[in-house]
Amino acid sequence: MAAPAPLSPLAPKSYPTLPEIEGVRFATAAAGVRYAGRTDVMIALFDAPAAVAGVFTKSKCPSAPVDWCRTHLAQGRARALVVNSGNANAFTGAIGASAVAHVGEAVGKAIGADPSEVFMASTGVIGEPLEASRIANALGGLVASVKPEALMESARAIMTTDTFPKVATQRATIGETEAVINGIAKGAGMIAPDMATMLSFVFTDAAISAPVLQTLLSKSVQRSFNAITVDSDTSTSDTLLLFATGAAAKRGAPEITDVGDPRLADFKRALDKVLLNLAHQVVRDGEGARKFIEVSVEGANSRKAAKRIAMSIANSPLVKTACAGEDANWGRVVMAVGKAGEKAERDKLDIYFGDIRVAHQGLRDPAYSEEAASAYMKKQKIVIGVKLGIGTARAKVWTCDLTKEYIAINGDYRS
Amino acid sequence: MAAPAPLSPLAPKSYPTLPEIEGVRFATAAAGVRYAGRTDVMIALFDAPAAVAGVFTKSKCPSAPVDWCRTHLAQGRARALVVNSGNANAFTGAIGASAVAHVGEAVGKAIGADPSEVFMASTGVIGEPLEASRIANALGGLVASVKPEALMESARAIMTTDTFPKVATQRATIGETEAVINGIAKGAGMIAPDMATMLSFVFTDAAISAPVLQTLLSKSVQRSFNAITVDSDTSTSDTLLLFATGAAAKRGAPEITDVGDPRLADFKRALDKVLLNLAHQVVRDGEGARKFIEVSVEGANSRKAAKRIAMSIANSPLVKTACAGEDANWGRVVMAVGKAGEKAERDKLDIYFGDIRVAHQGLRDPAYSEEAASAYMKKQKIVIGVKLGIGTARAKVWTCDLTKEYIAINGDYRS
Repeated sequence: MAAPAPLSPLAPKSYPTLPEIEGVRFATAAAGVRYAGRTDVMIALFDAPAAVAGVFTKSKCPSAPVDWCRTHLAQGRARALVVNSGNANAFTGAIGASAVAHVGEAVGKAIGADPSEVFMASTGVIGEPLEASRIANALGGLVASVKPEALMESARAIMTTDTFPKVATQRATIGETEAVINGIAKGAGMIAPDMATMLSFVFTDAAISAPVLQTLLSKSVQRSFNAITVDSDTSTSDTLLLFATGAAAKRGAPEITDVGDPRLADFKRALDKVLLNLAHQVVRDGEGARKFIEVSVEGANSRKAAKRIAMSIANSPLVKTACAGEDANWGRVVMAVGKAGEKAERDKLDIYFGDIRVAHQGLRDPAYSEEAASAYMKKQKIVIGVKLGIGTARAKVWTCDLTKEYIAINGDYRS
Repeated sequence: MAAPAPLSPLAPKSYPTLPEIEGVRFATAAAGVRYAGRTDVMIALFDAPAAVAGVFTKSKCPSAPVDWCRTHLAQGRARALVVNSGNANAFTGAIGASAVAHVGEAVGKAIGADPSEVFMASTGVIGEPLEASRIANALGGLVASVKPEALMESARAIMTTDTFPKVATQRATIGETEAVINGIAKGAGMIAPDMATMLSFVFTDAAISAPVLQTLLSKSVQRSFNAITVDSDTSTSDTLLLFATGAAAKRGAPEITDVGDPRLADFKRALDKVLLNLAHQVVRDGEGARKFIEVSVEGANSRKAAKRIAMSIANSPLVKTACAGEDANWGRVVMAVGKAGEKAERDKLDIYFGDIRVAHQGLRDPAYSEEAASAYMKKQKIVIGVKLGIGTARAKVWTCDLTKEYIAINGDYRS
């Protein structure tokens, strides 16, 4: 590995204190999967079986742990989560599948659970066989040392080219009881140099059934993790798992088994906030990122169209390099709207940088001040606004700029 | 404008001599549309009405000249072509439409043709009103100076950030008569810095009706201009026009009015070659390009799937930066295959760099030599081969690498 990259200039200024979540404990170890001198495995053990929901990469060539999790998610019950960095166990064929099974069995044996209740994720180099024995050998120590407060350590253990650990927390009232949601994530590009993966794990003590959890997660992810892009590349390993220990029921929280239950309102709000916060942190650690960019599209004829246009702008190398160059180049935004393939009428299109309207109804805004726009582009957060003027649907997505550092990070030889 | 970029290292070593094509004459002028000290307008005049076919950008926000050409293409008859660089006349609303109409009328008047027989294209800055009068003022001189041999000059007049003019020529036998096909193109990115457009104009003296010409062009473009990508961004102005003067009929060439006519075989071959040659030259002049990359996908279950996977690889910033870094990073190729959304089975996938098989049936090829692969990656032309192993369909596409120079070119302030 090359020397660690300097901290992203977009990193959070401080980290929140993560309240403990009853029913789940964590531990980390330096198992030597690939890195030396740092932790590279985390484990989460649930005191009792937790409800679990998940969403995964849409890649047609998913990693072995993604295949494993998909298979076992249907029963909606988790006893453990094991995650390693350093090796993605992707494109490793039958050897990869047997490595996953090996770890699953070893964990199951160590904690007295069925292997199907052990969830797994891996991040790191693609195409190299994962030495499952290194993880298995670390299990004894991991299981013996789990503690409720080790979630921040876990966020560090799963980093690859991330320049900072990503954590978020929210409290939510369900019925009259307060529950906690804690989440961690890693990712610095949909796929990092020679590394793969966006991973995120979210834990709550709320008592919510697995099917309800899955519905909430699938919906919330649309406006958070599925609304970010660093470089348009999709990892073989993207995994987001949400675990509910249900321990809040002991404090009087209702057990929720119906997604329409009105007592879920505050939990939904809190879950959305945790996922969006984590997703934004992934963008803020985007490879070479110097600017955090929000793309807001309004006035589309469907939400799907609005999102597709927003993503077309957010993925455009020319828009992203313009932001890197602090250039209020709205012509490139027009181009990206046009190429999205969705309905748009040139003569109704308005384009904004922040509050500055640079284009109005098919023409450069006569009142547009290049000076004001240039000053705005120097900010660390840039909002690109597009008003299509043909409907009422809207969407927001987030990305970072495209800099020479991205090329340097990804253009170097594998090491 | 910044200082002109140095000649692309992938530029052709020599230019072909372009044979004259009977029935069409060319001229260029320095009209001062935006640039100083260089030609920026070309005109092609047809001695008699030529058959014309065209394909255009799929952008939903096309430029004013694209709207104009689309409207008038149906009648399939051209008397003149006028192209300017420096201003794309895109996102210019009603003012842009009237500028196009103004030029059309001025040309029509100057040569005694209907404005609907005048085809137009513009390339350059987006969103600035085009001063049609500058082009109109140059018309007298242009019309007076047309000559058959000025096609290479025309290729230079339509350059924006191109580092070399792009020309190609082929001879084709129709019946027993030889016809000529000459083409020119410009483009250095689907959209250049603050500039828009891939433009190409192809001329032949063959006698082929407009509907047949259109069918041939629409088909040939799929495996040439629609199979290249520099940065995945689609211009508002992409225009490819094919004109047939029919003058070869005077030398005995048959007049072709049926696309199934077997006498078209050699012409089709020659047209494919001209378009592919020009398309490759656009890639070779890709912004910041140092490598010419061919992506070849075989064994797909449909041609559409093969092309979509090939484009997913060719558009992946991570694959392109790996090529720039001369890194045989086949994990990124796997990633790009996976994200394409088409059927692929990890355990059947083979990946090649040139003749070197780096991955075989879901695993790193045991015989793979990192040293040999690294040596291969130092070449100027890189072939990435993917064998999906699930069908018989195939596709090839072409792109260039993604370098720091691309960021520098596109990240600078507009000038």
